[in-house]
Amino acid sequence: MPLLPRLEDDQLAPEARAVFDEIRKARGTDYVNDIWRVLANDPALLARTWSQTRATMAPGALDGLTKELVYLAASITNDCEYCIRTHTAAARAKGMTDAQFAELLAVVGLANQFNRLAAGTRVEVDARYRD
Amino acid sequence: MPLLPRLEDDQLAPEARAVFDEIRKARGTDYVNDIWRVLANDPALLARTWSQTRATMAPGALDGLTKELVYLAASITNDCEYCIRTHTAAARAKGMTDAQFAELLAVVGLANQFNRLAAGTRVEVDARYRD
Amino acid sequence: MPLLPRLEDDQLAPEARAVFDEIRKARGTDYVNDIWRVLANDPALLARTWSQTRATMAPGALDGLTKELVYLAASITNDCEYCIRTHTAAARAKGMTDAQFAELLAVVGLANQFNRLAAGTRVEVDARYRD
Amino acid sequence: MPLLPRLEDDQLAPEARAVFDEIRKARGTDYVNDIWRVLANDPALLARTWSQTRATMAPGALDGLTKELVYLAASITNDCEYCIRTHTAAARAKGMTDAQFAELLAVVGLANQFNRLAAGTRVEVDARYRD
Amino acid sequence: MPLLPRLEDDQLAPEARAVFDEIRKARGTDYVNDIWRVLANDPALLARTWSQTRATMAPGALDGLTKELVYLAASITNDCEYCIRTHTAAARAKGMTDAQFAELLAVVGLANQFNRLAAGTRVEVDARYRD
Amino acid sequence: MPLLPRLEDDQLAPEARAVFDEIRKARGTDYVNDIWRVLANDPALLARTWSQTRATMAPGALDGLTKELVYLAASITNDCEYCIRTHTAAARAKGMTDAQFAELLAVVGLANQFNRLAAGTRVEVDARYRD
Repeated sequence: MPLLPRLEDDQLAPEARAVFDEIRKARGTDYVNDIWRVLANDPALLARTWSQTRATMAPGALDGLTKELVYLAASITNDCEYCIRTHTAAARAKGMTDAQFAELLAVVGLANQFNRLAAGTRVEVDARYRD
Repeated sequence: MPLLPRLEDDQLAPEARAVFDEIRKARGTDYVNDIWRVLANDPALLARTWSQTRATMAPGALDGLTKELVYLAASITNDCEYCIRTHTAAARAKGMTDAQFAELLAVVGLANQFNRLAAGTRVEVDARYRD
Repeated sequence: MPLLPRLEDDQLAPEARAVFDEIRKARGTDYVNDIWRVLANDPALLARTWSQTRATMAPGALDGLTKELVYLAASITNDCEYCIRTHTAAARAKGMTDAQFAELLAVVGLANQFNRLAAGTRVEVDARYRD
Repeated sequence: MPLLPRLEDDQLAPEARAVFDEIRKARGTDYVNDIWRVLANDPALLARTWSQTRATMAPGALDGLTKELVYLAASITNDCEYCIRTHTAAARAKGMTDAQFAELLAVVGLANQFNRLAAGTRVEVDARYRD
Repeated sequence: MPLLPRLEDDQLAPEARAVFDEIRKARGTDYVNDIWRVLANDPALLARTWSQTRATMAPGALDGLTKELVYLAASITNDCEYCIRTHTAAARAKGMTDAQFAELLAVVGLANQFNRLAAGTRVEVDARYRD
Repeated sequence: MPLLPRLEDDQLAPEARAVFDEIRKARGTDYVNDIWRVLANDPALLARTWSQTRATMAPGALDGLTKELVYLAASITNDCEYCIRTHTAAARAKGMTDAQFAELLAVVGLANQFNRLAAGTRVEVDARYRD
């Protein structure tokens, strides 16, 4: 069980209900992911994280799919199952193919390998990349 | 100082020299990043990681810039300064703008925030994303 | 299954049994958490980690509840389910409310977000905070 | 050098300038930390993270000092120097003593040790802490 | 379910089948671990990671068991259950005893504790260890 | 500057002085690493971590060099410069060669790569490794 209860619609405080209405409208579905149902225990936290998510993930200088790939790369590095599964679904909904996902995995693996090769050798940043 | 010496060209073993030749040809520049000069202490490791890097970062199902962004997202999550600085330069060389980099940072920050909200609440993966 | 067996009381070496006696007396309950039953495979490790835990978590300059919150913040950042669940219970036993836990989650999420914004921008520490 | 420039007051976009005004008023000082000067390259990101920070760190169910300690515990676990140095200063400004900081370090060290003992043994969560 | 399907032998592309043949010959068993069956969705990734694994884990300046212990220490620090379970089995097959595994856990726990004590105190590297 | 002062010998509390005497005797040198001089601000923390270190790193079921390699693998994964530099020196003092260190780096890099491939694919642990 989660450490804060997963709230059903009829258990929501008014401020949380208003956020759920926005989520449903923005996503075009009645389904609300369970992370929001858990965060709804603190309606102010729910409102802040939802508005931050909507603004951050909206297409801008980077398109929506690229943002999902970046989100996945960070979540895979942290091994967050909830985030990996839900954002893999989001990325697929925005067009990610199996081949693209496999290449993303390969790049994330390579980066993590080099992150440790750099850490363990204590190589200093080349002067040309430092300034 | 790095924990393994940074080798100059005239200190390279023949196998390492051959890898440096490939790096220079592939990159179209005489400059070889210091991480390769440190890895050159173990020519077999140098050869393996270079061939893996070339194959993994080549455009495929994902284009080259997207791969750099994914690499950066993982490296920022791990706080690897060497990797962040060198691959920011690589991403800029492939067209990344300041606005794109700022949005990448925002997405990486958001993912790391949610990674911990999911960890701390122990929210279970919604049935629809599990199977 | 755990990778080292979970030992029952009648499987304990004498040194491990003595530590279990201390745990039971200190906690005021006959129940001993499974992590201790697994660590009991190496009685010296069990003894060291128990005495370190008792000394570290005892109220001192910081009160007992604050120490549990700090413990949780680290464990959530590392996504250690065992540690999060057992120390959430410990924190609740020391008075943590749902509202306090939700605020802790928000702060941990915020910190992790800024940790990556700082990593990715490579912002240098302001002179006034450096010395 | 940071990877996005550190903006002086006369380089700020109007939206960023408005946020700086708020920061100065809320903090009661003319000094604005460099992380905000770097984030100011993306005024919308600056505005979002500042309003989130103000709301999250304000005293509520947890007092202001406790929130700083929780923030530090996460930042130490991630080894974010910028965050550790600036929030140690913030915690001291809210009353943190050397003795309290040393105990915080001890608890964070203990938690990180147990996080790995739990990871390596794959101990399962005791039934009583699972539901 | 995994996010890429686990391929049976009769679903393998020819390049993947060739890698499986090598794995079976090198390991002396018909059993192929599921991680390879998942990576087989991208035969080039499978081929690269297998050849890298074989070369890296082969006895050289470090013997095979020591390499498994080092692999475990990294995987425990990252809390990768798949890697911990499969490489614990590999280490046991190469002679690791329960007593050795318990000592490995103790060292990994100690290192993680000190990693955070060093991070939180911002202790500078002693001059004698810096150059 | 460190966040707690680095104490000189004449600034030590009696309990801390006693620990320094033990460190000097155990190490056979008058030099005391700076991490101990910083931890000396909390003599009880100093005493606990020193006695834990001595017991944990002493040769037992694993020899002293292997323990240093395991310590390094964890510290490299966490990118702790202080720990990497001081324990690389300790490992070299116990016989680690450049070739061994390079192989350790390769294994740590490989493990970190696979940790993320496992995380990102959500591959389930094979039944034979689960029980």
